[in-house]
Amino acid sequence: MLQGHQSWLFPNRPVILASAAIGGPFEAKGPLAEDFDTLHGDLLLGQDSWEKAERVLLEEACDKAIEKAGITKENVNFFLAGDLMNQIISSNFGARTLTIPFLGMFGACSTSMETLAVASLIIDSQSADYVLAGTCSHNATAEKQYRYPTEYGSQKPPTAQWTATAAGAAVVSAKGKGLHVTSATIGRVVDMGLKDPFNMGGAMAPAALSTIEAHFRDLRIPYDHYDLVVTGDLGKVGHSILCDLLQQHRIEIPLERYQDCGMMIYGDNPNVWSGASGCGCSAAVTYGHLFRRMREGQIKRLLVVATGALLSPISYQQGESIPCIAHAVAIETE
Amino acid sequence: MLQGHQSWLFPNRPVILASAAIGGPFEAKGPLAEDFDTLHGDLLLGQDSWEKAERVLLEEACDKAIEKAGITKENVNFFLAGDLMNQIISSNFGARTLTIPFLGMFGACSTSMETLAVASLIIDSQSADYVLAGTCSHNATAEKQYRYPTEYGSQKPPTAQWTATAAGAAVVSAKGKGLHVTSATIGRVVDMGLKDPFNMGGAMAPAALSTIEAHFRDLRIPYDHYDLVVTGDLGKVGHSILCDLLQQHRIEIPLERYQDCGMMIYGDNPNVWSGASGCGCSAAVTYGHLFRRMREGQIKRLLVVATGALLSPISYQQGESIPCIAHAVAIETE
Repeated sequence: MLQGHQSWLFPNRPVILASAAIGGPFEAKGPLAEDFDTLHGDLLLGQDSWEKAERVLLEEACDKAIEKAGITKENVNFFLAGDLMNQIISSNFGARTLTIPFLGMFGACSTSMETLAVASLIIDSQSADYVLAGTCSHNATAEKQYRYPTEYGSQKPPTAQWTATAAGAAVVSAKGKGLHVTSATIGRVVDMGLKDPFNMGGAMAPAALSTIEAHFRDLRIPYDHYDLVVTGDLGKVGHSILCDLLQQHRIEIPLERYQDCGMMIYGDNPNVWSGASGCGCSAAVTYGHLFRRMREGQIKRLLVVATGALLSPISYQQGESIPCIAHAVAIETE
Repeated sequence: MLQGHQSWLFPNRPVILASAAIGGPFEAKGPLAEDFDTLHGDLLLGQDSWEKAERVLLEEACDKAIEKAGITKENVNFFLAGDLMNQIISSNFGARTLTIPFLGMFGACSTSMETLAVASLIIDSQSADYVLAGTCSHNATAEKQYRYPTEYGSQKPPTAQWTATAAGAAVVSAKGKGLHVTSATIGRVVDMGLKDPFNMGGAMAPAALSTIEAHFRDLRIPYDHYDLVVTGDLGKVGHSILCDLLQQHRIEIPLERYQDCGMMIYGDNPNVWSGASGCGCSAAVTYGHLFRRMREGQIKRLLVVATGALLSPISYQQGESIPCIAHAVAIETE
């Protein structure tokens, strides 16, 4: 690997055998509702805590992806997952239920592509037959942990985002039919000094730029290589900033080919302010909506750049700015 | 890979070019003091919060390992790290300082070997030239986050453990001179229903058993293959339980060749109850003490089985039992 390079090309073209997306009641009202495998009408999913509900989302996404892949969990060598909860408990307890050898990961909302990138590396290097990658988030657990009690009804600024109640999972394999993972770029932490936790899109946009820049540089591919480039969850504010940054840095991705998962899942709903966020956002949009469009031939080459804000309430309370990261994975139909 | 298998053999024998261990004032009084690269007399390391002090421990371990490897941080392709803090902020902010492409991981105290295992896979599959793996913990941040304000002076039962104020890091490379990583086993989550967060050694021992059993089964090596098998931080209580479990399951590792990092770092100090814990414990003992003994020829084949208790205060407060995991990495001199 050349010094300074941060991308993996996967010559063995790992196959995404199947993927699944699970959502909550709010997601069921959005424009992508039909692309979820299951939509829950009850935000608690019949559990007695939000945390347990979040875990069930992940478990259902994993079970569904395994079922759709036509295998059993005993076939799966490794499970890679992470989430926003302290000590990633949704993933830990999900891994307890699945009993698949487990690598816990954390990249905040970039976890979707962090786990898919490493899963693809494991498959590409012939270090497993089947790897499961998944992540999840829940609006109520995130509000509780990161923000104020929802009972306060505290107002949010227009730069704020709505944490998706959703989970996504994918089964990656060396063989079989499906979409191919062709490359991945691992991000650097970028921190431009922003301290406002209600403007994560603005904080994360420069991290997305850094990873996109590295991806095209490392792979030496033209800027119009992909039919679609999506960022994870920059929302309207971050999306607009990234459009400016791409222009400034002369990264000439055709702007009509650039979208953001955080702007897609709820459409134009003004109640989500700048858009959606949460690990489950990019996971559900990618594994549900975008992969369906790829399977139908509408998209042939996709680059998913999942962004993550790596803050904690403690780091914020201690006056720290927000370190951000983005991981990119390229998926192609052929 | 055979169904049910969970181990990686590394035919290219990744090299640990260098490693480093940093400790705090309490570690400086222990029997392994001489094996640390730096020992701090001030628990705050000159910072204004425990969290910032923990981050400095990790940054120093990384800087030192890179320096000892005779390279610069620009040479390092990927940085794999995790810690016990909510949203692994020590690692995120450490990665911000290092500016190396970053994969955040979480396996509680098993993070030391989780990161080393994946770093070795990346190197073995020729997906990087240099990978840095590191982890850290701090007694005061862990007490604050997981337990009671230290000012309460609340008493602990004899099964409790003392979180180490320590960090360890290692540079893994495809070429060069050093110890070799020969294999790794990724653990499953094991939960025997224990709910007492003051007896994590007891909770984690069955997870260590599961991974050790899988390691010897997958690799088909005799139980006396290693000169030393160490568990991460089971402490006296967990060590004794694991000795019983190994006997019951007829895993005939010679008991004089089995030790626990949690019993080594503070020796017989009764003030640490059952022993040490924390991500930094197995990292500092392995990367400092044990690797020094390997370089001096006292140990030729080492298996480190780092154990982790994957609970959070929230999961404990909601009445959940403690899911546990262990990841094993084999290191050999030849």
